[in-house]
Amino acid sequence: MSFNSFGRVFRFTTWGESHGPALGAVVDGCPPGLPLTEADIQPWLDKRRPGTSRFTTQRQEPDQVRILSGVFEGRTTGTPISLMIENVDQRSKDYSEVAAAYRPGHADYAYDAKYGFRDYRGGGRSSARETAARVAAGAVARAVIPEVRIRAYLVELGGDAIDRTAFDDAQIDTNPFFCPDAAAAQRWEGIVDNARKSGSSVGAIVECVAEGVPAGWGAPLYAKLDSELASAMMSINAVKGVEIGDGFDAARLSGEQNADPMRPGNDGRPIFLANHAGGIAGGIATGQPIVLRVALKPTSSILTPVETIDREGQAAEIRTKGRHDPCVGIRAAPVVEAMMALVLADQKLLHCAQIGV
Amino acid sequence: MSFNSFGRVFRFTTWGESHGPALGAVVDGCPPGLPLTEADIQPWLDKRRPGTSRFTTQRQEPDQVRILSGVFEGRTTGTPISLMIENVDQRSKDYSEVAAAYRPGHADYAYDAKYGFRDYRGGGRSSARETAARVAAGAVARAVIPEVRIRAYLVELGGDAIDRTAFDDAQIDTNPFFCPDAAAAQRWEGIVDNARKSGSSVGAIVECVAEGVPAGWGAPLYAKLDSELASAMMSINAVKGVEIGDGFDAARLSGEQNADPMRPGNDGRPIFLANHAGGIAGGIATGQPIVLRVALKPTSSILTPVETIDREGQAAEIRTKGRHDPCVGIRAAPVVEAMMALVLADQKLLHCAQIGV
Amino acid sequence: MSFNSFGRVFRFTTWGESHGPALGAVVDGCPPGLPLTEADIQPWLDKRRPGTSRFTTQRQEPDQVRILSGVFEGRTTGTPISLMIENVDQRSKDYSEVAAAYRPGHADYAYDAKYGFRDYRGGGRSSARETAARVAAGAVARAVIPEVRIRAYLVELGGDAIDRTAFDDAQIDTNPFFCPDAAAAQRWEGIVDNARKSGSSVGAIVECVAEGVPAGWGAPLYAKLDSELASAMMSINAVKGVEIGDGFDAARLSGEQNADPMRPGNDGRPIFLANHAGGIAGGIATGQPIVLRVALKPTSSILTPVETIDREGQAAEIRTKGRHDPCVGIRAAPVVEAMMALVLADQKLLHCAQIGV
Amino acid sequence: MSFNSFGRVFRFTTWGESHGPALGAVVDGCPPGLPLTEADIQPWLDKRRPGTSRFTTQRQEPDQVRILSGVFEGRTTGTPISLMIENVDQRSKDYSEVAAAYRPGHADYAYDAKYGFRDYRGGGRSSARETAARVAAGAVARAVIPEVRIRAYLVELGGDAIDRTAFDDAQIDTNPFFCPDAAAAQRWEGIVDNARKSGSSVGAIVECVAEGVPAGWGAPLYAKLDSELASAMMSINAVKGVEIGDGFDAARLSGEQNADPMRPGNDGRPIFLANHAGGIAGGIATGQPIVLRVALKPTSSILTPVETIDREGQAAEIRTKGRHDPCVGIRAAPVVEAMMALVLADQKLLHCAQIGV
Repeated sequence: MSFNSFGRVFRFTTWGESHGPALGAVVDGCPPGLPLTEADIQPWLDKRRPGTSRFTTQRQEPDQVRILSGVFEGRTTGTPISLMIENVDQRSKDYSEVAAAYRPGHADYAYDAKYGFRDYRGGGRSSARETAARVAAGAVARAVIPEVRIRAYLVELGGDAIDRTAFDDAQIDTNPFFCPDAAAAQRWEGIVDNARKSGSSVGAIVECVAEGVPAGWGAPLYAKLDSELASAMMSINAVKGVEIGDGFDAARLSGEQNADPMRPGNDGRPIFLANHAGGIAGGIATGQPIVLRVALKPTSSILTPVETIDREGQAAEIRTKGRHDPCVGIRAAPVVEAMMALVLADQKLLHCAQIGV
Repeated sequence: MSFNSFGRVFRFTTWGESHGPALGAVVDGCPPGLPLTEADIQPWLDKRRPGTSRFTTQRQEPDQVRILSGVFEGRTTGTPISLMIENVDQRSKDYSEVAAAYRPGHADYAYDAKYGFRDYRGGGRSSARETAARVAAGAVARAVIPEVRIRAYLVELGGDAIDRTAFDDAQIDTNPFFCPDAAAAQRWEGIVDNARKSGSSVGAIVECVAEGVPAGWGAPLYAKLDSELASAMMSINAVKGVEIGDGFDAARLSGEQNADPMRPGNDGRPIFLANHAGGIAGGIATGQPIVLRVALKPTSSILTPVETIDREGQAAEIRTKGRHDPCVGIRAAPVVEAMMALVLADQKLLHCAQIGV
Repeated sequence: MSFNSFGRVFRFTTWGESHGPALGAVVDGCPPGLPLTEADIQPWLDKRRPGTSRFTTQRQEPDQVRILSGVFEGRTTGTPISLMIENVDQRSKDYSEVAAAYRPGHADYAYDAKYGFRDYRGGGRSSARETAARVAAGAVARAVIPEVRIRAYLVELGGDAIDRTAFDDAQIDTNPFFCPDAAAAQRWEGIVDNARKSGSSVGAIVECVAEGVPAGWGAPLYAKLDSELASAMMSINAVKGVEIGDGFDAARLSGEQNADPMRPGNDGRPIFLANHAGGIAGGIATGQPIVLRVALKPTSSILTPVETIDREGQAAEIRTKGRHDPCVGIRAAPVVEAMMALVLADQKLLHCAQIGV
Repeated sequence: MSFNSFGRVFRFTTWGESHGPALGAVVDGCPPGLPLTEADIQPWLDKRRPGTSRFTTQRQEPDQVRILSGVFEGRTTGTPISLMIENVDQRSKDYSEVAAAYRPGHADYAYDAKYGFRDYRGGGRSSARETAARVAAGAVARAVIPEVRIRAYLVELGGDAIDRTAFDDAQIDTNPFFCPDAAAAQRWEGIVDNARKSGSSVGAIVECVAEGVPAGWGAPLYAKLDSELASAMMSINAVKGVEIGDGFDAARLSGEQNADPMRPGNDGRPIFLANHAGGIAGGIATGQPIVLRVALKPTSSILTPVETIDREGQAAEIRTKGRHDPCVGIRAAPVVEAMMALVLADQKLLHCAQIGV
């Protein structure tokens, strides 16, 4: 029931604010005996780390992770794994404006409405900075599901979609956009540069595929694999939509078009002739690749002045100065991967309990 | 952690198979003293009930609900409310074909892969018949949130969208499609008739709006209101996508276009000049209407023979005879409303605990 | 977080009031493929059933259980198992007195203080009648842990303890007190007869032993096997104390006296030379028998008038007429067994998830 | 479902090993706006801190707590509160013996049986060192329930009980045993000195009273206040028994003797003429003081050689050298207080959600 925790038996809890001394995650329920060191976690954090290109925020954070518990002689012990990342670049700036007035699109007003006040420094708890803790936890989850390969990448940025026929997995890590289409990556440079220079922002769509998930993971009815994934993805900053397989397009297909026919496979498992379902039927994995997409809105931090109110309810106008990502969708890709890994690790362990072996 | 339960403090658990003697829900955590009788629940079940038009399955189920506990002298007592609905039209038919082979798009193969066998009669637990229990539970949830008005309706069927300028709330209950556009409802009759006659099926998109939700409900980070709603909606049969507010379209807007500016209101609450966010910011309700859409795939039950395998892994072909909805999206509308009510009732009560008053 | 649910992955939810139409349990998380019929559950209910001797309440309840879901062709399917027991002997009586004034020792005042009013008929939800649902659920749990043998019996009644040297397992089911000491059973007849005739009541201590629990079940730190068992036992009506192994006596031993030395066993598992710990160390089963005792207070329903207040807060006097058990501890034995089975089934399945195999 | 977490809406998660770099707790669900600084937490840690007298372990730990998140400008924000305590006195010693053989009474064997291996340094996660994190979390809980006064003290040590007629609340903090009876405290010095000098150990019984808990907190049936407290207390190292109110003695009383009669009070609340129930009826607080006792076994660490086996299953003999408490019961008193506060804070917040106001 802890709202900063996620998962059922493989469960993580995150803590920390954007401008606090540190942030972290406690991963509980990790099986014992898995090899795990800080070196296994750091590369994933480096993928999400800000300041690596001109297309993301210029905040400089090394995001060095420390394992404080749960690992002994290089292996997990089955006890909680405490991960901590210190904040080093909490620039001391004047927060009077953002403290006084609400930035439309941000969580400012909602937090005040709920809690009565808020830590306004850099967005406090509502900052995407928290996702660093998820990525660290996700690296632990990956150790639980070595049989699964997870890839997240952008398929659309600022309304400009990739060319599926030009999809090249090898491209994803060669450009700053996790883009599998070299030509699109080129175009996106211009789109993000324009947004950044004009103090505007753009949205994006991230697709994530998990291969190697065996048939059977996931459980009806209210922890369907689709539900767990949708919940996980919707918890990521700026995400406003989630779809599995063909998603919204499936609503426009006929039953014949949407069918995923099966043929006998050599290994006793079926060969599916299509994957409109995105690898999930009845809330349970079918053994096909899990495919989902998440829609991320444009960053709410823009330089254009916007009409708003202040804490006293008086009319005000605000423009968001300071460092931010012109497209939060870019750095969301490693976070989507992490959440996918965290959900699947939990489902793998749950499946053991559900079947009782 | 019960996977047939949903909710945190206002929690319901459903049970029952399509062709079993009955199905039901146990609603736990309902506050005491709320007026509740079977007459308060029945109307919502009647909206979802099959066999009310030629556009839905012809299975005849009165869906009469009985309250077996938790209510005393017409008021809730704070103890679990047990609701039961007896199945009366479990037509005895020959299930040998569906028992032997897997219907693509159905949960047949996935259930066998997970559990080793399944109750194949009418889809067993994976049948949309289970949603009757959700609707009954949802009626109890409505008693917890009298301040909230919830409406779900179809905005697209078989790829044919409504005309937003022709939106008429009063139309929704006057046609068999929960359609707010009279002209579209006319067109949809033809679409569904064609699908039914040709043994095909179509998908749909359901939109749901909740008005009257006060700012503050919902809690970061992993029980964000968006996450809870997405999880709830994805648990509904045939749902493959969920979006909040502008959802996927928001990914194509600029930060300026996507902003929801605020102005001072007379009652101390802000007036929002737009609602791209669908009433949720940072996972917390802003006081604006909650707006979401869910995509439902076409019914997997079609008369066209589809390539598949049997339980022995041998090649087979199957066509789904018997009664079914040519468009599951139609009867999903009352279920979407119920899940919205169930999530909001839970969030209202949680908010009390979160603030501590 | 449903407060009428218990368990983590093997979870049950009970519902129903003493004088409602029925009561029941929904068991969720039961593995698939286990043989289960109503005939497997009924014998356990018959052990707890009232009216079987002059030493228990004379309310006549056949406690016939019906399985409404989750079982197909005699085997569990992995879906929720709904169990229902109809109430047949809700004697229509005048409740005006108990409705108006609070019976000291009962939950009357506490329920009103919390909920504002209560279902006063026969104690409503706070009646021990609810434990029938637990026993039914417990029978399902037993199917999950065939390797475990559970026995609960009274070791003390009305302050009169059994002679441990006269302990005879075969005696337990041959007397109405689940007493392993024939001589004590004889004495207890007189104790309970006296209590019953004088309108008084007596307490009891129930001991429960679970043999065959493998080393490893249970998980630190807040779901220690001791914690789970203590929580389960304390939820039983009238229970005021729980101890594991030597329990309170262990506080009077020296470290040497309390040690449980180990010797090599033939099967690779250690032979323990003592079991002061009651089969649990660090919250984890050691492979020894799990041993616990629960203390049950005397029934609060007595004929002696007791000083109390009425709903208006005015002074009153009340004596509890009507049917009741002169010693609730007697019929608690089957309930203690059921709760032990329910905890162990949950722990067995959790262990799979904790180890990840 | 995280087994190192406790609580339902006010929830804490602890992490850390005895000889790791640090340990800590993440407190989630704390209401916003409560004054909280490290200075509010430190005094409670100091009460539990080792090395304060010759009667406890000589390990020197300042137990300085740091608040890493969830507090802004001296007030809680409603976001997770991360508390960290660094270990400074992890004496580097030779662990080869304890690594090779199992110490009877310790969790060594059980951890290996469950997890396959263990962090044997100072007991790793099973060390009472973890309770420092609980005490820190408990200090946060106290901020949630200012209306409640909690006192824990020893009523028995090494089998020597206090004289209830000599009970003096003021004595509790004036001796190293949290003993309310000055004469008993004198006697206990000798008992603990003898145990320490002879390398033996003794057990103790801790009583805890919470005054000011309003009627209504707690919820039937499986989160009864008794159940929650029993679960919390049983999770403390070395605890083997818990009783509420008269506990086991209640099993020896008649219904008349055990009754808690009520009289009208001036403030509309009843005056209870006795408190055999320990302030809880039907799992709900009655408004009387909550009274419970926990039994702690003697420390398993003794110098007397004990028969055991090694990791290879061969016969061995072991004696526990190094630093330890001759009576773990002494330092358990502040931990019992902390767990009482943690349960009550959770119940206070839950009550809001249960009643819906």
